[in-house]
Amino acid sequence: MEAKVVEFDLGRVEAILGAEDRAGAEEYLRELPTSERARLLSRMDGDSREHLIGLLDAEFAADLIQGLGETQSIEILESVDADLAAKVVDHVPSDEQADLLSGCDEEVAEKILAAMSPEEAVDARELMRYEWDTAGGMMITEYLAYRETATVREVAEDMRSNRDKYANFDIQYVYVTGENQRLLGVLRLRDLVLARQDDTVVSLMIQNPISVEVTAGLHDLYHFFMEHHFLGLPVVDLNGALIGVLQRSDVEESMSEEATENYLKVSGLQGNEELRSMPLMTRSRRRLSWLSINIVLNVIAASVIAVNQDVLEKVIALAVFLPIISDMSGCSGNQAVGVSVRELTLGLVKPKEVRRVFLKELGVGLVNGFVLGLLVAVAGTIWQNGWFGLVVGTALMLNTIVAVLIGGLVPLILKGFKMDPALASGPILTTITDMCGFFFVLFFAGTLLERLV
Amino acid sequence: MEAKVVEFDLGRVEAILGAEDRAGAEEYLRELPTSERARLLSRMDGDSREHLIGLLDAEFAADLIQGLGETQSIEILESVDADLAAKVVDHVPSDEQADLLSGCDEEVAEKILAAMSPEEAVDARELMRYEWDTAGGMMITEYLAYRETATVREVAEDMRSNRDKYANFDIQYVYVTGENQRLLGVLRLRDLVLARQDDTVVSLMIQNPISVEVTAGLHDLYHFFMEHHFLGLPVVDLNGALIGVLQRSDVEESMSEEATENYLKVSGLQGNEELRSMPLMTRSRRRLSWLSINIVLNVIAASVIAVNQDVLEKVIALAVFLPIISDMSGCSGNQAVGVSVRELTLGLVKPKEVRRVFLKELGVGLVNGFVLGLLVAVAGTIWQNGWFGLVVGTALMLNTIVAVLIGGLVPLILKGFKMDPALASGPILTTITDMCGFFFVLFFAGTLLERLV
Repeated sequence: MEAKVVEFDLGRVEAILGAEDRAGAEEYLRELPTSERARLLSRMDGDSREHLIGLLDAEFAADLIQGLGETQSIEILESVDADLAAKVVDHVPSDEQADLLSGCDEEVAEKILAAMSPEEAVDARELMRYEWDTAGGMMITEYLAYRETATVREVAEDMRSNRDKYANFDIQYVYVTGENQRLLGVLRLRDLVLARQDDTVVSLMIQNPISVEVTAGLHDLYHFFMEHHFLGLPVVDLNGALIGVLQRSDVEESMSEEATENYLKVSGLQGNEELRSMPLMTRSRRRLSWLSINIVLNVIAASVIAVNQDVLEKVIALAVFLPIISDMSGCSGNQAVGVSVRELTLGLVKPKEVRRVFLKELGVGLVNGFVLGLLVAVAGTIWQNGWFGLVVGTALMLNTIVAVLIGGLVPLILKGFKMDPALASGPILTTITDMCGFFFVLFFAGTLLERLV
Repeated sequence: MEAKVVEFDLGRVEAILGAEDRAGAEEYLRELPTSERARLLSRMDGDSREHLIGLLDAEFAADLIQGLGETQSIEILESVDADLAAKVVDHVPSDEQADLLSGCDEEVAEKILAAMSPEEAVDARELMRYEWDTAGGMMITEYLAYRETATVREVAEDMRSNRDKYANFDIQYVYVTGENQRLLGVLRLRDLVLARQDDTVVSLMIQNPISVEVTAGLHDLYHFFMEHHFLGLPVVDLNGALIGVLQRSDVEESMSEEATENYLKVSGLQGNEELRSMPLMTRSRRRLSWLSINIVLNVIAASVIAVNQDVLEKVIALAVFLPIISDMSGCSGNQAVGVSVRELTLGLVKPKEVRRVFLKELGVGLVNGFVLGLLVAVAGTIWQNGWFGLVVGTALMLNTIVAVLIGGLVPLILKGFKMDPALASGPILTTITDMCGFFFVLFFAGTLLERLV
C-alpha cells in the first residue's frame, strides 16, 4: 500500500478532465492515498465528478466507489446519469450492489437496475429482497459450485477456462450440489491442491456441511463466525438449495455498520448518515426532524417547573440546580441505556429479563445516587444552608435511581416491541428524568418551604 | 448453524459438572445457540465457570471463548487459574491472543504468558508490542511462506504433512520469500490448483506484491480493503521482511470495535466496556469516574445562573426556559460532533480543515437556529408576552449557532492534538453551550428588564 502522504490537487484533476485523459486520471488516482480519493470526490462539484467517473474504466470506477463509505457511494450514484451508474454497479460484488441500490432513492434505483446488464440486475433484485441484517442481505452470489460427479480435473479446467470471470471471486471453498442445487458438501480449495486429478469432488468433500438459512440474523451469525474458523458459509433456502455464500468479513462489516448507526443515533443523527458535502437544506432538515421532536419533549418536561413556579419564586436559588439535576440524571440514565443496548447486541440479555436488569441497575442507582446526592448536598449546603442542601441532594439521589432504572429497562422494552432501542431510548429517558427531577426538587422545597426562606 | 431456539439450563450444567462429564458438557454446549453460550457463561458463578472450562477440551474451550465478546472473554480469563487460561489461549489465533492478553490486567497477563507454550508466548508478546489499530496489532502470524526455489510438489507435500498444524490457518494466499524473509511474491491457492507439479513457486507467483508496513493505521487499511478485493495482505517490517498477514475480516472487526467504543463513549461509558455480570462496585466506580467530572462541569455552567439571580428573581418564568435552552443546544451541538467524528473516521475531513467545517456548520446553525428560535419565541410569547418570547427565542437562536460551531470544530481540534474526539467533545461542548445559553437568556432579559416586568 502506498504510504505516500500526498494530498489531492483539484487543479490537476480539472486539467486531466479537460484533456479527457483517462490514463492520466487513473494514474493520478492510483497515486493518491486511498482515503484522499474519498476526500477528493467529496470536494468535487457534481458535474466534474460525473465527468471523472465517466472517464474512468468501469472496473476502475467500481473499485473507486467501493473505496468510499456507503453513504458517499450512494450520494454519487444518485447524482450521476443512470447509465453511468449502472455501468459502475455492474462491476461491484452482488452484495454491495444490493446495499448500494437499496440505499438509493427508489426511482433512481429502478432506473439504474433497468440500465444494468440483465443477469447482474436479476441477482441484485434478488438480494434486495432480503433485510440487510440477515444472511440473505449479506451474502454474495459469486461462488463456485459443481455437481457431485465432477472430477478434480474438470474443476481445474473450469477454473482455468473461466479465469477472468472468477478473477474477483473470493474462493476459499468449492461447493458440491445435487438435484435442484441441493447442497451436498463443501471442500476447501487447499484440498483440491492435495487431490489427484481423477478424484471426484464427492470423494473429497466434507459431507452435510454446516450452512445457514437465508433468514438467519446478524447477531447469531456474528457469534457463529467468532466461534468458528470458517471464512465463509454456504447459504441455503428453505429447501436446502445453495443460493449464496456468506463471508466472515461481510458479517463483521454489518456489525460495524450497526455500531456506527448506534453512535449516530445517540448523537441525535437519525436516518441516513450526514456528510458535509450534502446540500445545506438536506442537512438542516435531517437534523431538525430530530430537534423538533426534542423541543416538544423539553417543553413538556419544563412544564413541571411552570406549575411549581410559586415555590421557585420563593427559593430562587433552586433555579441554579434544576439544569444540574436534569443534566446529571440524563447522564446516569444514558450510561444504563448504553450498557443495555450493548448487552442486547451481544445477546447477553433478553428483552424479558426485566427483573435481572432492574436489580442490577438498582444497585448502581443506590450507590451512585448516594454519592452524587451527597456531592450536590454539600455544594448546596455551603452555598445556601443545610435544608437547601438536603432538598437538592435528596432530589438528585432519588432521580439518579429513577434514571438508571429507566435507562436500563427502556431499551429492553423497546426491543421487546421490536422497536429500535438505540434510537428512542434517549429521548424517552431524558423526558421522564427531567420531569421527575424537577418535581422532586420543587416538591421537597415546597414541603420544607418555611425552613428554606 | 443450529437454528434451535433453546435456552440454557443452569441446573443441567451443574449436573454435568457434578458428573465431571466432558463429553456431555461439549455435547450440551454444541446444542445451545451460539449466543446462548455467552449468556450461560455470564450467569454462572466464577467457580463453576472455571470448573466448566477446565473440564472442556482446550481446543473446544478456545472456540467457546472466541465466541464471546472480547470484554467477556477477558473477564473470564482473568477469573480462572493462570495455567487453565494459558491452555485455552494457546489454542487461539495469534492476533486474538494479543488482544486478549493486552486486555487483561498486566500481572495476570504475565502469569498467563509464563504458563503458555513457549513458541505461542513468543508470538503473542511480539504482537502485543503493536497498537491494536495498526497492521501489526491486527495481523496474524499463521501463514504459509516458501522459499522461491520450492516447487508446487514440495508445497503440496508440506501442506499434506502439516495438515493438522495448518488446519485452522486461513490460507487464501501462499507467500514466497528470499533472503532474510524478504517478501518476493504471492500466489493465490487457486493458482496452485491450476499449476503443474514441477513448476516452482517463483514461476507462478505475482511479483513485487502489494504489502503493508507493520505501522500502517486502521483507517487507511480500511479504505484499502474496501477498494481492493484482497482477502489478506502480507505485512512487512521496515526491511521488507514478511512478519505477518493482515486479513480483511480483522480490519472490519477493528472498525466495528472503534464504532462500538464511540457509541459507549458518547453514552458516558468510558474506558472498558461494562457488562452487568461484573461486580457492582466495579460498575459503579467506572460510571462515577465520568459522572464526577460531569457534575463539576455542570456546577461551573450553572454558576452563570447564580451570578444573574437578580434578573431571574424578577422574571421567574425564565427559569422554565433555562433547561430547555441548555438541552436543545446540547442536542444541536452533539449532532455536529457526531458528523465531525464520523467524517474524521472516514477520512473525509482533516483536523486542519477548520475553515471548511466552520462554514458548513454556520449554514446549518443559521437555518436551525432560526427555526428553533422561532418555535421557542412563539411558545414564550403565548405563555408570557412578546418581549419574553423575543428574549428566549433570540437566546436559543444564537446559542444554536454557537453549539453547532463548537460541536463541529471541537473534534477537529482534539484530533489535531492527538486526543480522542469521541470522548472529550461532548462534555466540553455542553459546558460551553450551557454557559453561553444561560448568559444569553439572562443578559437579554436584564437589558429588557423594564419591558418584562
